[in-house]
Amino acid sequence: MPQLRLALAQVNATVGDLAGNADLVVDFCRQAAEQDVHLVVFPEMVLTGYPIEDLAMRASFIKASIAGVQVLAERLAQEGCGDLVAMVGYLGQAEGVDNRLGIPKNAPQNCVAVIHGGRVVASQAKHHLWNYGVGDEIRNFVPGDTINLVQIGGIDVALAICEDLWRDGPSAAAKAAEAALLVVPNGSPYEADKDDVRLDLCARRAREGECVLAYVNLVGGQDELVFDGDSIVVDATGRVLGRSRQFEPELLVVDLDLPAATEPMPDPDERFGGLRIRRTIVSAQPFAAYEPRPVVHHERMKRNEEIYTALVTGLRDYVHKNGFSSVLFGMSGGIDSTLVAAIAVDAFGAENVFGVSNPSAWSSEHSQSDAAEQARRTGLSLQTIPIAPIFDAYQDSLHLDGLAEENLQARVRAVIWMGLSNQHGHLVLACGNKSELATGYSTIYGDAVGGYAPIKDVPKTLVWELARWRNEIAVERGETPPIPENTISKPPSAELRPGQLDTDSLPPYELLDAVLDAYVERDLGSAAVIAEGFDPALVERVIGLVDRAEYKRRQYPPGPKVSRRNFGRDRRVPITHRWREKL
Amino acid sequence: MPQLRLALAQVNATVGDLAGNADLVVDFCRQAAEQDVHLVVFPEMVLTGYPIEDLAMRASFIKASIAGVQVLAERLAQEGCGDLVAMVGYLGQAEGVDNRLGIPKNAPQNCVAVIHGGRVVASQAKHHLWNYGVGDEIRNFVPGDTINLVQIGGIDVALAICEDLWRDGPSAAAKAAEAALLVVPNGSPYEADKDDVRLDLCARRAREGECVLAYVNLVGGQDELVFDGDSIVVDATGRVLGRSRQFEPELLVVDLDLPAATEPMPDPDERFGGLRIRRTIVSAQPFAAYEPRPVVHHERMKRNEEIYTALVTGLRDYVHKNGFSSVLFGMSGGIDSTLVAAIAVDAFGAENVFGVSNPSAWSSEHSQSDAAEQARRTGLSLQTIPIAPIFDAYQDSLHLDGLAEENLQARVRAVIWMGLSNQHGHLVLACGNKSELATGYSTIYGDAVGGYAPIKDVPKTLVWELARWRNEIAVERGETPPIPENTISKPPSAELRPGQLDTDSLPPYELLDAVLDAYVERDLGSAAVIAEGFDPALVERVIGLVDRAEYKRRQYPPGPKVSRRNFGRDRRVPITHRWREKL
Repeated sequence: MPQLRLALAQVNATVGDLAGNADLVVDFCRQAAEQDVHLVVFPEMVLTGYPIEDLAMRASFIKASIAGVQVLAERLAQEGCGDLVAMVGYLGQAEGVDNRLGIPKNAPQNCVAVIHGGRVVASQAKHHLWNYGVGDEIRNFVPGDTINLVQIGGIDVALAICEDLWRDGPSAAAKAAEAALLVVPNGSPYEADKDDVRLDLCARRAREGECVLAYVNLVGGQDELVFDGDSIVVDATGRVLGRSRQFEPELLVVDLDLPAATEPMPDPDERFGGLRIRRTIVSAQPFAAYEPRPVVHHERMKRNEEIYTALVTGLRDYVHKNGFSSVLFGMSGGIDSTLVAAIAVDAFGAENVFGVSNPSAWSSEHSQSDAAEQARRTGLSLQTIPIAPIFDAYQDSLHLDGLAEENLQARVRAVIWMGLSNQHGHLVLACGNKSELATGYSTIYGDAVGGYAPIKDVPKTLVWELARWRNEIAVERGETPPIPENTISKPPSAELRPGQLDTDSLPPYELLDAVLDAYVERDLGSAAVIAEGFDPALVERVIGLVDRAEYKRRQYPPGPKVSRRNFGRDRRVPITHRWREKL
Repeated sequence: MPQLRLALAQVNATVGDLAGNADLVVDFCRQAAEQDVHLVVFPEMVLTGYPIEDLAMRASFIKASIAGVQVLAERLAQEGCGDLVAMVGYLGQAEGVDNRLGIPKNAPQNCVAVIHGGRVVASQAKHHLWNYGVGDEIRNFVPGDTINLVQIGGIDVALAICEDLWRDGPSAAAKAAEAALLVVPNGSPYEADKDDVRLDLCARRAREGECVLAYVNLVGGQDELVFDGDSIVVDATGRVLGRSRQFEPELLVVDLDLPAATEPMPDPDERFGGLRIRRTIVSAQPFAAYEPRPVVHHERMKRNEEIYTALVTGLRDYVHKNGFSSVLFGMSGGIDSTLVAAIAVDAFGAENVFGVSNPSAWSSEHSQSDAAEQARRTGLSLQTIPIAPIFDAYQDSLHLDGLAEENLQARVRAVIWMGLSNQHGHLVLACGNKSELATGYSTIYGDAVGGYAPIKDVPKTLVWELARWRNEIAVERGETPPIPENTISKPPSAELRPGQLDTDSLPPYELLDAVLDAYVERDLGSAAVIAEGFDPALVERVIGLVDRAEYKRRQYPPGPKVSRRNFGRDRRVPITHRWREKL
């Protein structure tokens, strides 16, 4: 059988950075060419970054992307990669009109260009637009109607783009067209607890298509999304022929033996279902035989490592891609800011991490000593600024009490952090967790301030679990565990009044997080939550808290999605609404 | 020709309030029955409120809506409205599977129920889902495939729902089915400067359908949207037979002479295009002849009145529907907070409006005297709390300078407002305008704090225009103009350092707003903006400011959309992106 050396370029693109992303493509193509690769596949929309949201509809950006892909083709040939076939995602444009959606000529499309010999020899637009969860592609793109078959070294290669793989059709089309290889560029964000859905899907589609399937995904953070890579090649029986690391850029090279194409001549009227089939022959002769390389097959990370790495990646890329290099946040000595500190030190190094301790009259001794202990263990900088003189200055004018007085303390701290941020250029991090965000157990413009919120999608029980896990792997590596034991074991408290505990206002976190999982992540109504065995009064209380806190969530900083349903674009509910789940 | 007394029930529904909205429907049906109306049509999704966003996908809410419409039908009969035909929008459910979108059985639909004699006699789902601008209906609903023809008093009445009217099809179907009347329930939000697009569309579709067309719209505010009503009935030549007031609830009664139905017998296989036609006969005999009423035809408001009324409506409904009755905000004596004060007094009465003046070392004499003068003119409560002691307390610890010091002043004020809000239960208003929001000329967690931002979609030049207009109509009405002349005429300043003027940091507002209109509202690239005659350096500077301020806009409070493209759901761009318009 003919051989093909395939490479999957799992890269970290930046949205809108056409020049930088083109450089990245050239760099990976050069590496591929040096390794005698025949075909290199990049992730979805690698040239523009992904997702570009409404930038898709800006005429100047569409024009720049289309021009950019032509320039890239020429440049690849000049750089000695002209023999290599490169499949590169970009923002393209429909030629026709889509009457169903009422979208005009030149509407944007999510495309992949097939580049060879200094030219774009074929292009394909995504058929099935991703329009659920955090995806809004029907808003931004019109669907394509063509499947490309590109013959490389006498082997027919078919293309499907991301969501296309989740629908029936592409694998059947690949089979009907007798493609030997189906390549799938993706921009598929990380979510915890999906088991190995991705591998299962690839294996199923490969079996359906009776072909090898190659799945390549982005890595890196983009606003609330984290792409985890995990690029995969499976054979027609579903066996893994290669798998990349997660979260890190990698050029995965896989040697394939594939059946030769049986239908060498293009037929312009060929169709499958509603799709046109367009055949392009890059090279009909098999490549010279060569010695295949061993299979590269990285194991997936375990759950806690995977989630923690997603948090580090999301934070690091948000900060760096927005031009910052250091971060600052309040260190209360509690578990949330302590986990954030560990993540930040892992993302930026201790020298770029600045903690601020702001003790008040109600702060416990351990709130300061635990923060200081973590600073000592990790090497981050910790500054202490007591809030009493400022708090008193407010109270001389305002005479607040109760909740207003509690919130005042949180806001005095926030103004201190923002002042230091403005003065020294550190990005402020908000340290709230998902349980807090769900129930509104935070002070808006107080502890909720920040440019990014690294653990906003992490429930409190998982915060503890990740803290324990981070300490455990430090021990395994012979390093100092970054998180003081006392921080993990002590009962959580906002310390805004004497002797305050979270459990004064909230149910125990194990119970709270279980109800939140049902109501928020699985979107169950109250009757269905209660049917899972929870106390009706508890369910009513939790749902009431969640519904009333929507206004706070709208003004919360962005943070990395790691759950099935985050409080960002996954869950879009009105602030103003009176639907109350009845018991 | 047979007669029909039609009523359009232009009501203010509340999202999620199934019981309250049902009461509203019963109330308007009773009024209609008392006036011998034969058919009353309510706006789109009146039973659930609109838009319901992801509540559409919560099984418990779908179930409650479907049950609610059945209960409503029974209740209407019990309340003596059984003879009346009522068309009531609700959240329904598809019976089949939509393979195109991969959506399962029981997927949500945007429906209208036809209620008569205590039963739902027909139901129709929206065909064309609104999925651009602020609409996300393809995410939330699956499309319907049926057009209903309901015979009432021997007259065939066809139905189309909102977006359906903007596409070809419904009017052609109405014509093909020989409907005499096409009724169109809508949830169509207000936008300034659309000319009379709505009337033009209704007239065009009526001519195409060769039938009378009745368009009924919601009124009131829902988060960032304001519905302006403006319900219209036109005859088959496009002549207006009735038109409601804007922004206020109204039962518009219109007497029609309509051709009798020619096809009295249902044919179960009848189709038009891809749509099933379903015929329901409520009453085949013409109603007894009666004396028609005179035509009710309200003139549309002029531009400034219309925009100002939209702002008052959006603010009032956000505050009231979220359970607040009073508002508080910083009064700097500048034009923005002054316009907000006038809007708030118009929305809530002076007794519910609380201004706070927070002079600093750099505050001018007039900043206090102008605020005091407005308080005197309108009767709102003004409290003065100087910030110096608090500012000094921060500086003793922080020693900030430059921009950090300027921002500190704004944040000290914000903490004061939030403290008073927490203590006294007033909702805080952010007073920023659209030009400020566009360029990031505001302090995050400073002047940007608030539960609602009444003028966030109003460019600075329009702020002045509305202020002048509000004073002029006060003079016309023989009232005291609410806005001090000096506030309108003085040059704008943030007063965060000595002698500071907005023009130190920004281009003149006339120029700035013109560039923003091109870049933000019309989404032009820089070359296209420059082609309109603007200085390239100015364009580059403004675009840079807009692109860098996205993170601030994400955390800004909601506020009423009045423009073509607001900074909420109309314009969804990433925070993290490096696309820079090149010159």
